[in-house]
Amino acid sequence: MRRRIYEMIEKGEQEDKISLYYDRFMIFCIIASVLPLCVKNSTNPVFYRIDRITVFIFIIDYLLRWGTADFKLKGEKPFLRYPFTFFAVVDLIAILSSLTPLYSTLKAVRILRLPKCMKPLKILRYSKGFHLMMQVIHKEKDNLFTIGLLAVGYILLSALILFQVEPDTFASFLDAVYWATITLTTVGYGDICPATSIGKIIAIVTSFVGIAVFALPTGIITAGYLAELKPKHKR
Amino acid sequence: MRRRIYEMIEKGEQEDKISLYYDRFMIFCIIASVLPLCVKNSTNPVFYRIDRITVFIFIIDYLLRWGTADFKLKGEKPFLRYPFTFFAVVDLIAILSSLTPLYSTLKAVRILRLPKCMKPLKILRYSKGFHLMMQVIHKEKDNLFTIGLLAVGYILLSALILFQVEPDTFASFLDAVYWATITLTTVGYGDICPATSIGKIIAIVTSFVGIAVFALPTGIITAGYLAELKPKHKR
Amino acid sequence: MRRRIYEMIEKGEQEDKISLYYDRFMIFCIIASVLPLCVKNSTNPVFYRIDRITVFIFIIDYLLRWGTADFKLKGEKPFLRYPFTFFAVVDLIAILSSLTPLYSTLKAVRILRLPKCMKPLKILRYSKGFHLMMQVIHKEKDNLFTIGLLAVGYILLSALILFQVEPDTFASFLDAVYWATITLTTVGYGDICPATSIGKIIAIVTSFVGIAVFALPTGIITAGYLAELKPKHKR
Amino acid sequence: MRRRIYEMIEKGEQEDKISLYYDRFMIFCIIASVLPLCVKNSTNPVFYRIDRITVFIFIIDYLLRWGTADFKLKGEKPFLRYPFTFFAVVDLIAILSSLTPLYSTLKAVRILRLPKCMKPLKILRYSKGFHLMMQVIHKEKDNLFTIGLLAVGYILLSALILFQVEPDTFASFLDAVYWATITLTTVGYGDICPATSIGKIIAIVTSFVGIAVFALPTGIITAGYLAELKPKHKR
Repeated sequence: MRRRIYEMIEKGEQEDKISLYYDRFMIFCIIASVLPLCVKNSTNPVFYRIDRITVFIFIIDYLLRWGTADFKLKGEKPFLRYPFTFFAVVDLIAILSSLTPLYSTLKAVRILRLPKCMKPLKILRYSKGFHLMMQVIHKEKDNLFTIGLLAVGYILLSALILFQVEPDTFASFLDAVYWATITLTTVGYGDICPATSIGKIIAIVTSFVGIAVFALPTGIITAGYLAELKPKHKR
Repeated sequence: MRRRIYEMIEKGEQEDKISLYYDRFMIFCIIASVLPLCVKNSTNPVFYRIDRITVFIFIIDYLLRWGTADFKLKGEKPFLRYPFTFFAVVDLIAILSSLTPLYSTLKAVRILRLPKCMKPLKILRYSKGFHLMMQVIHKEKDNLFTIGLLAVGYILLSALILFQVEPDTFASFLDAVYWATITLTTVGYGDICPATSIGKIIAIVTSFVGIAVFALPTGIITAGYLAELKPKHKR
Repeated sequence: MRRRIYEMIEKGEQEDKISLYYDRFMIFCIIASVLPLCVKNSTNPVFYRIDRITVFIFIIDYLLRWGTADFKLKGEKPFLRYPFTFFAVVDLIAILSSLTPLYSTLKAVRILRLPKCMKPLKILRYSKGFHLMMQVIHKEKDNLFTIGLLAVGYILLSALILFQVEPDTFASFLDAVYWATITLTTVGYGDICPATSIGKIIAIVTSFVGIAVFALPTGIITAGYLAELKPKHKR
Repeated sequence: MRRRIYEMIEKGEQEDKISLYYDRFMIFCIIASVLPLCVKNSTNPVFYRIDRITVFIFIIDYLLRWGTADFKLKGEKPFLRYPFTFFAVVDLIAILSSLTPLYSTLKAVRILRLPKCMKPLKILRYSKGFHLMMQVIHKEKDNLFTIGLLAVGYILLSALILFQVEPDTFASFLDAVYWATITLTTVGYGDICPATSIGKIIAIVTSFVGIAVFALPTGIITAGYLAELKPKHKR
């Protein structure tokens, strides 16, 4: 019977109706538990009740998963090791944050449960478009990694230079990195921007060169995507 | 004779001169009725007169369309069903908003009439460029939809995280979604931006990863466009 | 001898040394006459002297061009028609704006002379890269025009909608168009941005859809560029 | 023995263990010497000690390199010419800026040492992705240069026009160039933006046309990248 419960909770195979319904119910609970985070004053009685109900469900889910841990974790002492797996820790913190009266930022831990919702959505993975996209990203991951490294290096260098030239503009080095990232991604909030002439010249050069560096990923993804599409066309 | 009026109003075939002139005249009237919306104080006497004349024309147009509804709507009781079709409702609200002395925001409903102007512009659809573009978008609609979903999910997640970390920056969750969208599309107004160090780190990571997600559509459209062009080249 | 002067001034052929030097000298004068525009107080004595010298050269150039107008303009009465050609009018206004003591914005007319500098730079046109680029733009001009139209339409529609929803944010309809353009090109200054919730929702939708519309040109240029490159590779 | 020291310092070949460790140690020292630049008050005692130690190491490194200059510099009088090579000058200034009690902006010179860290990272150069990318950039360098020139010209022209139309918005011409660059790269800080109606119209036109100019590089890189990938696929 423990095997049956495990299959129900974990497997999520297409044919297994009960498992499917369980997955859907848990997604609903996770989203319901995240919803109160979207409102400022979560002292609302409706949200309070949702909180009570979902925390009760999550406790049962937690205990069921713990009780069937030997099916999931191969190796020795699965029941001892389970509480230290990533999702078990997240679940425990999320449950405790709901039980304690202190409404702290700890509740944000619940967001980490959201990836769980992705699992039953793995049907998405079978969609042709998404599959192809993942293949391209996988194939070009070396290039994308190199560009990522280049971009990070460029951001740090720009931040360092402007931080030296205009120390008064930035409260800390983090601010300089923040400025460089926001500039080079062309977001450009404008909450921190160069005030002196030298700083402006550096900003001009930085943003001009930056486009080239940040335009590369698009090109590579397009090229990779096209290279992937070609052979299928020819066959 | 009712059939003739219907053909005149609705068909808009190339050879039918009167139908063509009627379409052009209605486009002129729609644009003329929208123009006063571009000015702040629409109490101007010129605009008032334009309003009177166009509303009179729209009433006649509305009655003519109603009177020939049986040619357009197949099935039972066309005259009863016509007033509940989309454009009939829009027309009615627009006419009533002009007739009543209350100059309310209801007048903005007229903008919904603008798609009507697209119909006689369907010649555009025969242009090679536009046709090809539509074909590409149609073929890649699965991929574009997947990316759209991914982008919306990413925006909501970013909004949720920063909303938890910096609740004081945002008046409501809508503001957080607004911030995330404006950041990830690299518009970056800067009216709402992170104030704390943790918030800034989240903004850095968010905008950095965001480029990759938002750079994908361009790549896919290019690749699809090129794949569409290829076969024609080879023949 | 008038023919010789005309060849010297206009032709600008590679072998003709004097013509080449004349062209270079005129570029130098045009740039020298534009330079004072880059400074705020052009009452500086150095700039004043430059102004005197260049205006003298431009008067001679103007008279020489007028005197050889019959070689340039085919047809009747070339001497009468010449002063009404585009560059002759620009030159005349620029000369007069320098001669009169009123330092007005009319001086900005000199900027219109800058395209003249492009002519001797036509060597650039022979560079393979520039030539190819022009070819792609020429070939895809139908598509680019369609997209341009679409983009302008989308900007006007967005401007119209937000202008109706939030009339207090904008001083005039021009401001709304300015906001829509700055948003959709992802520049996002943030000097004008939506203040109400409905306005923010419209901004979210607008900027989200806008990327798709504005990402198209890049894709089309890339595809066109590649299609242009392909045949050369195969031969 | 001097040859051995030279090999240890300069070569950095894969097999040479000591050379490898030396390179890694120097990278560590360079980064350690740059770190204090990331903090505002570098009067911190920990940073002071790091400064003392690294400057000592850099002096030894400088002397060792000078002493083995005849292996590096071919030609006459290598010991006399070495102190005037780029990195020797940078090293000297960096060392002196640490030794003198005046904590000036001269310390920023240390950033120029960072490229030295790239050398032992030349393994990166052998990575397929980076190699391919460099090849594409090298092949398309004519096109990219032409576009770069076009972009700079467009920035200067936009700056000049808005500077004439709205002189009150800008403190100097540099500000106008700064505004044009920040606008055309779509960063859009919003610290300087047009205030008058004519200025706004110019900004609208400028940013609209600007996208086309700045979207070209992406297209060219993609096309070049793809052209480079193709032959390998076919073989």
